[in-house]
Amino acid sequence: MKIRTVVWGENVHEQKNKIVADLYPKGMHTCIADALNKNDDIEATTATLQQPEHGLTQERLAKTDVLIWWGHAAHGDVSDAVVERVCEAVWSGMGLILLHSAHFSKPFKRLMGTPCNLTWREAGERERLWVTSRNHPITRDLPDHFELENEEMYGEPFGVPEPLETVFVSWFQGGEVFRSGLTYKRGAGNVFYFRPGHETYPTYHDGNVQTVLRNAVRWAHNPMTRLQDVNAAPNVPVETAPEKIEERGPKLHQAGEEGYR
Amino acid sequence: MKIRTVVWGENVHEQKNKIVADLYPKGMHTCIADALNKNDDIEATTATLQQPEHGLTQERLAKTDVLIWWGHAAHGDVSDAVVERVCEAVWSGMGLILLHSAHFSKPFKRLMGTPCNLTWREAGERERLWVTSRNHPITRDLPDHFELENEEMYGEPFGVPEPLETVFVSWFQGGEVFRSGLTYKRGAGNVFYFRPGHETYPTYHDGNVQTVLRNAVRWAHNPMTRLQDVNAAPNVPVETAPEKIEERGPKLHQAGEEGYR
Amino acid sequence: MKIRTVVWGENVHEQKNKIVADLYPKGMHTCIADALNKNDDIEATTATLQQPEHGLTQERLAKTDVLIWWGHAAHGDVSDAVVERVCEAVWSGMGLILLHSAHFSKPFKRLMGTPCNLTWREAGERERLWVTSRNHPITRDLPDHFELENEEMYGEPFGVPEPLETVFVSWFQGGEVFRSGLTYKRGAGNVFYFRPGHETYPTYHDGNVQTVLRNAVRWAHNPMTRLQDVNAAPNVPVETAPEKIEERGPKLHQAGEEGYR
Amino acid sequence: MKIRTVVWGENVHEQKNKIVADLYPKGMHTCIADALNKNDDIEATTATLQQPEHGLTQERLAKTDVLIWWGHAAHGDVSDAVVERVCEAVWSGMGLILLHSAHFSKPFKRLMGTPCNLTWREAGERERLWVTSRNHPITRDLPDHFELENEEMYGEPFGVPEPLETVFVSWFQGGEVFRSGLTYKRGAGNVFYFRPGHETYPTYHDGNVQTVLRNAVRWAHNPMTRLQDVNAAPNVPVETAPEKIEERGPKLHQAGEEGYR
Repeated sequence: MKIRTVVWGENVHEQKNKIVADLYPKGMHTCIADALNKNDDIEATTATLQQPEHGLTQERLAKTDVLIWWGHAAHGDVSDAVVERVCEAVWSGMGLILLHSAHFSKPFKRLMGTPCNLTWREAGERERLWVTSRNHPITRDLPDHFELENEEMYGEPFGVPEPLETVFVSWFQGGEVFRSGLTYKRGAGNVFYFRPGHETYPTYHDGNVQTVLRNAVRWAHNPMTRLQDVNAAPNVPVETAPEKIEERGPKLHQAGEEGYR
Repeated sequence: MKIRTVVWGENVHEQKNKIVADLYPKGMHTCIADALNKNDDIEATTATLQQPEHGLTQERLAKTDVLIWWGHAAHGDVSDAVVERVCEAVWSGMGLILLHSAHFSKPFKRLMGTPCNLTWREAGERERLWVTSRNHPITRDLPDHFELENEEMYGEPFGVPEPLETVFVSWFQGGEVFRSGLTYKRGAGNVFYFRPGHETYPTYHDGNVQTVLRNAVRWAHNPMTRLQDVNAAPNVPVETAPEKIEERGPKLHQAGEEGYR
Repeated sequence: MKIRTVVWGENVHEQKNKIVADLYPKGMHTCIADALNKNDDIEATTATLQQPEHGLTQERLAKTDVLIWWGHAAHGDVSDAVVERVCEAVWSGMGLILLHSAHFSKPFKRLMGTPCNLTWREAGERERLWVTSRNHPITRDLPDHFELENEEMYGEPFGVPEPLETVFVSWFQGGEVFRSGLTYKRGAGNVFYFRPGHETYPTYHDGNVQTVLRNAVRWAHNPMTRLQDVNAAPNVPVETAPEKIEERGPKLHQAGEEGYR
Repeated sequence: MKIRTVVWGENVHEQKNKIVADLYPKGMHTCIADALNKNDDIEATTATLQQPEHGLTQERLAKTDVLIWWGHAAHGDVSDAVVERVCEAVWSGMGLILLHSAHFSKPFKRLMGTPCNLTWREAGERERLWVTSRNHPITRDLPDHFELENEEMYGEPFGVPEPLETVFVSWFQGGEVFRSGLTYKRGAGNVFYFRPGHETYPTYHDGNVQTVLRNAVRWAHNPMTRLQDVNAAPNVPVETAPEKIEERGPKLHQAGEEGYR
């Protein structure tokens, strides 16, 4: 079965800004989905902010193996209920890939537990991404470094928790650096942040970037059956303890009672 | 200067439950604060849910080096505004120590980005804590293992992100295990989760537990000046880039404009 | 193509000790290889200490995707040249799974950079392994915990570096705990330590243990082309620097010279 | 008591190369020790390759809180016995700071378990170090970035295990990046790798670099009593098991016997 991938796009600048519309006439999300669909093992569709429930109903997320998220101008318009739903899907095993300005998206901030802030400059400068983890699944078929001639700069310090692995570090022409590829795990879900992708540049048409996205989808995909009740905190009665014990001492809870939350 | 420590207690069961009130006549928070105040380098005070702003005003948090949090029955009564304020203090450098049932407290879940769930049993069984990181600052003056004759059981899997370090692992009489001491960093703030402390047992009167708390306060304390504007994402204008560059390519933002959030 | 797996066995106790020989008439390594070969995607063969170059020639390692290592009584008899060869294969992308008493094997100590010590007791007591990372590839098809009725005890503190992830924690009847499943990455190679497997008990006949081994082989397998020259530290001449620069200041090395080692 | 720090210098180029000798007339090690001794809480002395046992006798290491290591041309001349002794001191709690070309030193490679390789260029180019962990003890009193006008370039991928924390990332004028400050823990010992310090440039006279070294010494210092017998793997007899158990099943070892190594 193919990896069922949903590319979520905010789809705001594509409608309002001629530069962006010219670069991505069908939207950035469609450009990314089209690139992914060139791979036999990936089946990518799209969803956007403007759709009911932002196109991310409970039913759809249940059938999504990997969700890719691009947002920028309208982070605040994303419904908190959908954000919670996305996070629960991640905890239960859905992969999540956050692109560029999605560092400030609600799902990323929610999953990281930190401000996720950085410095930035929009000057069309050169970015060079260096692989810092050789032969990581996400760097497959890539050279040790590759360039994007025009990109927005993001600079350190990047306000995120220490990752499981730092996969890419970027060099910028203007003198900054940035940890551009970071892996995390939240519950059973694999999470990857990937820096490039400013909307006024043709980044998602770039071959190396498309390779990263393909690799990241495969890496983020957890083929196991999704966990159920990811928030459950079940009581284990004395009678079913793995080792035989006798209850003793004072108690707060009655037998079979639910715990506090 | 002493380490300014605030012990936050939910203070609900101490008022309602005779067993808890007998064990902790002045409240669990006061018991913990009293134990910490035996150390020359720590100055501990208390705060409770029932106080205005739960006793955690902006002014007080600004002067708090380490916050200790115990909650259980009333997680939902804690104001979201106070939770956000606590998290911002952590990101800016305040230490945070979460005790026992605070695994389900709002600040911990907010900082972890995961469900923080587990299994549990209230049977007064024996818990034995094993040190898994020898000579970690938090294990100072402790033997390789110590026991609590009566404790609530918490069992794996524990729904948290992989920690920076696993410091303690607990053995339970009924057959379960639990990662009982976990360190994290969120922004400039050190975060420590410590498992023991069910309210119907005299855990916070235990000498080894008091040693862990003293060590944890010292470990969590970040003596540097608190970071300001922990959410700031400043623009770096072209003119002040570390290396001289010329602006090129299309732009979304006007000079000096703020970024989207 | 199948995952080419080599199960390396010390093969000493199987020859000398009747209990072990009765449990594993063809050797522990063959028992493990047979279990793995029940899976369509794995092709497991064996190698032993007594063979020339311990059965691990350069040619064979070059064609090995995952190496499984069991040793106990004869760690010191393993040739340092073979150990270095194994480590280089790991750095270049070969997976390595270390079983039980292989915590003291030369390759594990070499890759960890620590003493890898622990406490132990041979009393045939009960071990219960708890999953601490739900839906990790290594825990696929396993319940949240499973038991081995007779095992040797290994106790914390375990002298290893903090892992990428703690996947299993063991409970022992005699009161100890142990981090029984730990993942690492060394160069491009995935490394997994798995605790159970004392030679006087039928551990490798256990269905859950066989499931772990199958999962671990799949997890450890890095399908990418093996890295070449894993120790190379190439000079980047000024003329081929990614950005145009001019050489300046005093120099130690002549153009084209090799670096010191 | 002051932090007893030993600065170990290879002291080869200072004797042979006029540029290095002019920059560091008393040796790089003495320059570093002098800078550290400006701090009231640090007492730094030096040791060099040419001294008996390279100046690192068992007695001296036992009284050393933090060891700083600079080597380049003569890694191979360092005695394996001294390397093992240094590693044992680290495991028992001594801090270790590795500078620049010490990435290829025997102690660093031994503790990392990886090739520790990188790319390099000696062109006197500009290096800019960015802080990636705000308010980390090692970045105290530093700005978010600082520059070294002339340095050797080290480029990624850097062949080391994923660190506990990435503290600095360097930008190089010629287009490369490097993770310049990495923290590890090996046993009870804190380990820090810091990149700058090519011998033909005045790097160790730089104020920011001296601040990093001072901070790193304080961070690496573990004030607890050094662990004894860091390689010990003690047997826990059945009679002294924390929980009462009865021995059962077949055994390999006789009572009181030592384990295999």
